[in-house]
Amino acid sequence: MSATVSPSALVTRFRAVRTATEALCVPLEVEDYVVSSMSDVSPTKWHLAHTTWFFETFLLAPHADAYTPLEPRYAFLFNSYYVQAGERHCRAQRGLVTRPTVAEVYAYRAYVNDAVLALCEQLADDPAHAAWHTLELGLHHEQQHQELLLMDIKHVFWTNPMRPTYRPAPRASPKAVPQGWQPIEPGLVEIGHRGPDFAFDNEGPRHPVYVHGGRLAHRLVTNAEYAEFIAAGGYRQPVLWLSAGWATVQAQGWRAPLYWEQHDGAWQEFTLSGMAPIVPYAPVTHVSFFEADAFARWAGHRLPTEAEWEVAASVHPVAGRYVEHGAFHPMADDHEGMQQLFGDVWQWTASPYVGYPGFRASPGAIGEYNGKFMADQWVLRGASCATPQSHARLTYRNFFPSNTQWQFSGIRLATHV
Amino acid sequence: MSATVSPSALVTRFRAVRTATEALCVPLEVEDYVVSSMSDVSPTKWHLAHTTWFFETFLLAPHADAYTPLEPRYAFLFNSYYVQAGERHCRAQRGLVTRPTVAEVYAYRAYVNDAVLALCEQLADDPAHAAWHTLELGLHHEQQHQELLLMDIKHVFWTNPMRPTYRPAPRASPKAVPQGWQPIEPGLVEIGHRGPDFAFDNEGPRHPVYVHGGRLAHRLVTNAEYAEFIAAGGYRQPVLWLSAGWATVQAQGWRAPLYWEQHDGAWQEFTLSGMAPIVPYAPVTHVSFFEADAFARWAGHRLPTEAEWEVAASVHPVAGRYVEHGAFHPMADDHEGMQQLFGDVWQWTASPYVGYPGFRASPGAIGEYNGKFMADQWVLRGASCATPQSHARLTYRNFFPSNTQWQFSGIRLATHV
Amino acid sequence: MSATVSPSALVTRFRAVRTATEALCVPLEVEDYVVSSMSDVSPTKWHLAHTTWFFETFLLAPHADAYTPLEPRYAFLFNSYYVQAGERHCRAQRGLVTRPTVAEVYAYRAYVNDAVLALCEQLADDPAHAAWHTLELGLHHEQQHQELLLMDIKHVFWTNPMRPTYRPAPRASPKAVPQGWQPIEPGLVEIGHRGPDFAFDNEGPRHPVYVHGGRLAHRLVTNAEYAEFIAAGGYRQPVLWLSAGWATVQAQGWRAPLYWEQHDGAWQEFTLSGMAPIVPYAPVTHVSFFEADAFARWAGHRLPTEAEWEVAASVHPVAGRYVEHGAFHPMADDHEGMQQLFGDVWQWTASPYVGYPGFRASPGAIGEYNGKFMADQWVLRGASCATPQSHARLTYRNFFPSNTQWQFSGIRLATHV
Amino acid sequence: MSATVSPSALVTRFRAVRTATEALCVPLEVEDYVVSSMSDVSPTKWHLAHTTWFFETFLLAPHADAYTPLEPRYAFLFNSYYVQAGERHCRAQRGLVTRPTVAEVYAYRAYVNDAVLALCEQLADDPAHAAWHTLELGLHHEQQHQELLLMDIKHVFWTNPMRPTYRPAPRASPKAVPQGWQPIEPGLVEIGHRGPDFAFDNEGPRHPVYVHGGRLAHRLVTNAEYAEFIAAGGYRQPVLWLSAGWATVQAQGWRAPLYWEQHDGAWQEFTLSGMAPIVPYAPVTHVSFFEADAFARWAGHRLPTEAEWEVAASVHPVAGRYVEHGAFHPMADDHEGMQQLFGDVWQWTASPYVGYPGFRASPGAIGEYNGKFMADQWVLRGASCATPQSHARLTYRNFFPSNTQWQFSGIRLATHV
Repeated sequence: MSATVSPSALVTRFRAVRTATEALCVPLEVEDYVVSSMSDVSPTKWHLAHTTWFFETFLLAPHADAYTPLEPRYAFLFNSYYVQAGERHCRAQRGLVTRPTVAEVYAYRAYVNDAVLALCEQLADDPAHAAWHTLELGLHHEQQHQELLLMDIKHVFWTNPMRPTYRPAPRASPKAVPQGWQPIEPGLVEIGHRGPDFAFDNEGPRHPVYVHGGRLAHRLVTNAEYAEFIAAGGYRQPVLWLSAGWATVQAQGWRAPLYWEQHDGAWQEFTLSGMAPIVPYAPVTHVSFFEADAFARWAGHRLPTEAEWEVAASVHPVAGRYVEHGAFHPMADDHEGMQQLFGDVWQWTASPYVGYPGFRASPGAIGEYNGKFMADQWVLRGASCATPQSHARLTYRNFFPSNTQWQFSGIRLATHV
Repeated sequence: MSATVSPSALVTRFRAVRTATEALCVPLEVEDYVVSSMSDVSPTKWHLAHTTWFFETFLLAPHADAYTPLEPRYAFLFNSYYVQAGERHCRAQRGLVTRPTVAEVYAYRAYVNDAVLALCEQLADDPAHAAWHTLELGLHHEQQHQELLLMDIKHVFWTNPMRPTYRPAPRASPKAVPQGWQPIEPGLVEIGHRGPDFAFDNEGPRHPVYVHGGRLAHRLVTNAEYAEFIAAGGYRQPVLWLSAGWATVQAQGWRAPLYWEQHDGAWQEFTLSGMAPIVPYAPVTHVSFFEADAFARWAGHRLPTEAEWEVAASVHPVAGRYVEHGAFHPMADDHEGMQQLFGDVWQWTASPYVGYPGFRASPGAIGEYNGKFMADQWVLRGASCATPQSHARLTYRNFFPSNTQWQFSGIRLATHV
Repeated sequence: MSATVSPSALVTRFRAVRTATEALCVPLEVEDYVVSSMSDVSPTKWHLAHTTWFFETFLLAPHADAYTPLEPRYAFLFNSYYVQAGERHCRAQRGLVTRPTVAEVYAYRAYVNDAVLALCEQLADDPAHAAWHTLELGLHHEQQHQELLLMDIKHVFWTNPMRPTYRPAPRASPKAVPQGWQPIEPGLVEIGHRGPDFAFDNEGPRHPVYVHGGRLAHRLVTNAEYAEFIAAGGYRQPVLWLSAGWATVQAQGWRAPLYWEQHDGAWQEFTLSGMAPIVPYAPVTHVSFFEADAFARWAGHRLPTEAEWEVAASVHPVAGRYVEHGAFHPMADDHEGMQQLFGDVWQWTASPYVGYPGFRASPGAIGEYNGKFMADQWVLRGASCATPQSHARLTYRNFFPSNTQWQFSGIRLATHV
Repeated sequence: MSATVSPSALVTRFRAVRTATEALCVPLEVEDYVVSSMSDVSPTKWHLAHTTWFFETFLLAPHADAYTPLEPRYAFLFNSYYVQAGERHCRAQRGLVTRPTVAEVYAYRAYVNDAVLALCEQLADDPAHAAWHTLELGLHHEQQHQELLLMDIKHVFWTNPMRPTYRPAPRASPKAVPQGWQPIEPGLVEIGHRGPDFAFDNEGPRHPVYVHGGRLAHRLVTNAEYAEFIAAGGYRQPVLWLSAGWATVQAQGWRAPLYWEQHDGAWQEFTLSGMAPIVPYAPVTHVSFFEADAFARWAGHRLPTEAEWEVAASVHPVAGRYVEHGAFHPMADDHEGMQQLFGDVWQWTASPYVGYPGFRASPGAIGEYNGKFMADQWVLRGASCATPQSHARLTYRNFFPSNTQWQFSGIRLATHV
């Protein structure tokens, strides 16, 4: 399997992605890199090291003959879940490990960067070499961790009673986006990845699927709409919820999305810029599948399947804001068609995460990338404000369990017919 | 909505089903009715009372004007999960309730039976009355609990170091069934229930679905084949397992199906007739989805989707043994086509349990029957040795979570292409 | 070690104690014998069998040559904690075991009774035989379980939403007992058992101890007094509680003694005769050590040490009611001195349960009787309404952890000086 | 209540103690300050801040009129358990708080130091002012946290698979100390603090107590002796253990003291200088009460009571090594009498931690210092290698629960008679 872009483009991209990860850490203090505020959250330090370990283990170890690891014990500490790649440090203890220090982790990154660039130089005239594919995969892997890093540091900051801020607040707020509905005709369609561009293994094979028809909302559910659901007693009516969802509402004491707090009757939300009043027209964020499903039921609608989403999104898609990553792009008021597909929030679908027909995991440890998680999770489509722009695409299949809220996830509705 | 059979047929069926439930309890001592050996298991006494409560709540309360409950507190004690039907006793405490006594529960059954039969007499000349549909639903509900009752009492007996037996061992063992493979052509098919016969709401609407092709095994995976998987280190190789499956293997210490024990190197199995050597050609039973999935991967195959199963099963199906319910039907050696579809074990599919396109739960408490469980479970098809024969059908969708083993569940393989 | 009474007296006592245990079960249904409503509670059936196992294991097995166990597996099922007496069934599973049935347990009792009486006949002319001491110990052991059986069945009944009753309510209520204070002079005293009468090993050796002086309340704290403590916010003021006590209040949501419930502002209490308004002048019951300690602090007093209690009680003690065991003995209004010492509730002391100076456990499994529990529990003195009268004595040391409430325990105050 | 030393001596001591705390942190990286490796362990950063908060809350707030807190939210973050001093941050979350940073915590210390010294200057001519007593108490409080800080950082380092070291290994090892036995005559003695020197409230009142006689070991149990206990199956014989101790052995999988690991059959121990072979003649350390008690039983002896310890130690005590705090003081070979009393390890006693006769907690939040922990813990006497030398004294009562191992605790034996 070879890469989808040229060696020189990959090298450029390698420098850019590695730098971008470190740029995300500029606002952090050393202390912020160390902790894990809940079992889903990894320390920033771990993200920095684990993405480096990926290149060391899957690229350098098999392909760079003279490569010597900087510290052999890192292979144990920074393996996440690749059982074929050796023993792993217990996930629950990631936040207890104070050494290597942050400075040592940056030194590890630099050491591996140098080795990777030296290997690239050596292989530059063999664009079909398997190492290029691994390099490309490693870059997409690191981009995934860029989003995880932001999800995690947001949770770490929120856990702290001092409520630190990661960056200044944006200057402008989104305006209202008018609602409209995109019809989906019943019939056989094709979905999934095929072609020369990069995609993860779980995005293919491209295959026919029968869609049953309905209409998809042009825009996402807003904070104001979700606040109505809360005000109407949405979190107190078991009949709106899946059985396991209701059990979670009760066990966790949920009464709003993660990061929402009510002060003097008004909803505020913890953001990467600190506590702020909820923005009425912004897409509701940090809802679990259970909440998305309950909201849709309350609204008389449903969540779309991933096939419907992909079909609708391929017509004339309009990207979203990517505001958390920097520049703010207000939506035009007058365009039509599917909006807010990429760059606001991941959109829960009604599709459980399983392999597409004909999917088989690649052999070896790399094959553990996606396939082993194909149970008891749900597909999300699109891309969020925390997703690197070059990482978003039409066929991307993100996935999370029914009860997690810390990802940047929201709701797009579909009608029953 | 009216019933699918005539009032007089329903009355006959009512007497038969109610009697059949009590017949299952004949081998039990009073003490056996009381306990719950794990959180999934309900006491026999509770099954007897809960199925009765269903008729009282959904049939008698709305339709029998003069009906007075025998004991108003039973409404609280014997509601399972119908949140719209009022407060419920905590599931975890079901096994701690010694009163009402077993005798009182039987009296409750008789009292409700009389009231139901009186109501039937009164409505006999109105076959379109909604009550008939509820009565029919209640009978299918009770038949489901007949199987649950057997699952549960088996677990209760197994928990007891005295290892009591429920019934004598069958006299003959199943012989080998030759393997064969049923081809499934790629293309659009229709699955799901449509028509005048009874079906649960989750079996419809009938709808088109594109199947991608492959072949389905004529017969089920046997104990001997599964023992090979164990001997080959199946429970020690994480690469064979879904990530959550491997976590379960480690957390629970799984090394064989539930009820299997190794004595002097040979596998024995706890059955309703006590401990016995495993029968090599009998279908492996009491495996979880995780185990079925890992076995299939080890064997180089996969689990079928529910659409593939339904398509293959509709060609020329051959029923199984129903041995746990009594008479033993040995398989012919020479027939061809899909075998062991009904009457041996439920068959795990690769299909997560979600609503069919267009599915919407019925309004009211009855609507909580199936829809609220449509998350994070898997569909099983067919019927087991513990399923009442009149309850099995082609479109039936049973469902359990990935990690449960106490149901009578097994494995039918499918090929990748 | 030989017994403290004659062989013939022991035989009489054996018949009486064994009969008394079974008499306590007369009000029970078969179902009531089976369950364990929390981890501290054993099923009635287990108490009946375990006390029998004690005689089988420690008396018959070593001394009755021809004795054959009725069922060898009972040795595993009915061992409580005697590690030297072989493997034990897991305590947490006691309530899941439906077989042997209640009838079989009664047959086991009868079988062992016969064997014990046969052995007694055989040894009748050897009053110094060690077996007599074991027999006597077994009887005291069974009397302890008589009280445990009542504690446990009360909890089982309370757990049941049907709230069954064990026996009819008593006809009369206790009247007010005037308060008075018994002075304890500072100085060296002797406490503990010495002499020919029976006592458990933990009651000796008799030894000198220096007591520091103060006064002990003549009577126990009443329900009315305890209700004042609640009304004054006793359960909401952390400063009144030991640190671990306050953590328990919060974790368990305590706001009153076990079995108390507030209805329309008035306190009711679950008793063996069902729910009833609290009796103002009756001793408060079912309080933990933490609650007793907090109450005493709130009242400006403290709990007595066990030495103070024993010294005060040896002056001119007056027994209590023993009402739960049957006949009701109203207190005289005019007597003086220490009252309610025996027969109402066990009285928490400020003394942690450790061995007396010079205490050493007996060798062998019998030595596990008391010594191994000498950590992190507190001594209670006196005897409760559920204690067999012949089992109560001045030097008796009962013990429970700080946070248990289901024993019949109450409060006697002491002054600081 | 006034202080026990002059204002000028207190000011000198204040500077010394505050500096000593920070000196303990010199070997740490910023990352090391942040985490909590188990629920008993607080982050170094928290110790630095909490000891500062103590002065701010109990000294500056009531006595320094013009004092303004540097950051009001620190009052919430750095309160440990003083419920009368306001709301507290959840202990379980201490290790998740990345801000204030380490640098900010040091700034907080400097800010409070300045304010305390300014207050001292102001009060210099009023040596009877209550503030002096609070200052003195705060210094002893901080010295306690110096030991906790070392206990905690040792555990943090041990949790890390990189196994960092805190300081270089000592150059010499302790030599064998000959065993001898100090007789304790039966009779009335006095123990506890009385007089002008500083002591915590729980060390008094001084009071008579009757001791029952026996002999106390001159020296502590060594690693070599404890290794014999392990080799003899000490961790596999339930009869040696208290019942709750044995349950802990099984639940925690204990088979040696905390920090011991077996490599190729030889025992190694994690120390503040990294992994090292156990030193045969050094006192065994990091044993729980349960282990100390089991060892004593195995050795045919018992643990001393705290009265026995205090009586024996007051004859001609010889201090220990204080090696972990710096200089190493080898023991003379030839001295007699009680040795290793202070400076090696805390010594478990057989005395549960309760208030002395007549003890009453001081009013106000300061009164929560010791009294509220007087349940379900055991007294340890002496002082460890991690205890500041000026903090050790004859009447000091340290206390820990039965199952904790991370304190520097060891064993001194006593004979039964």
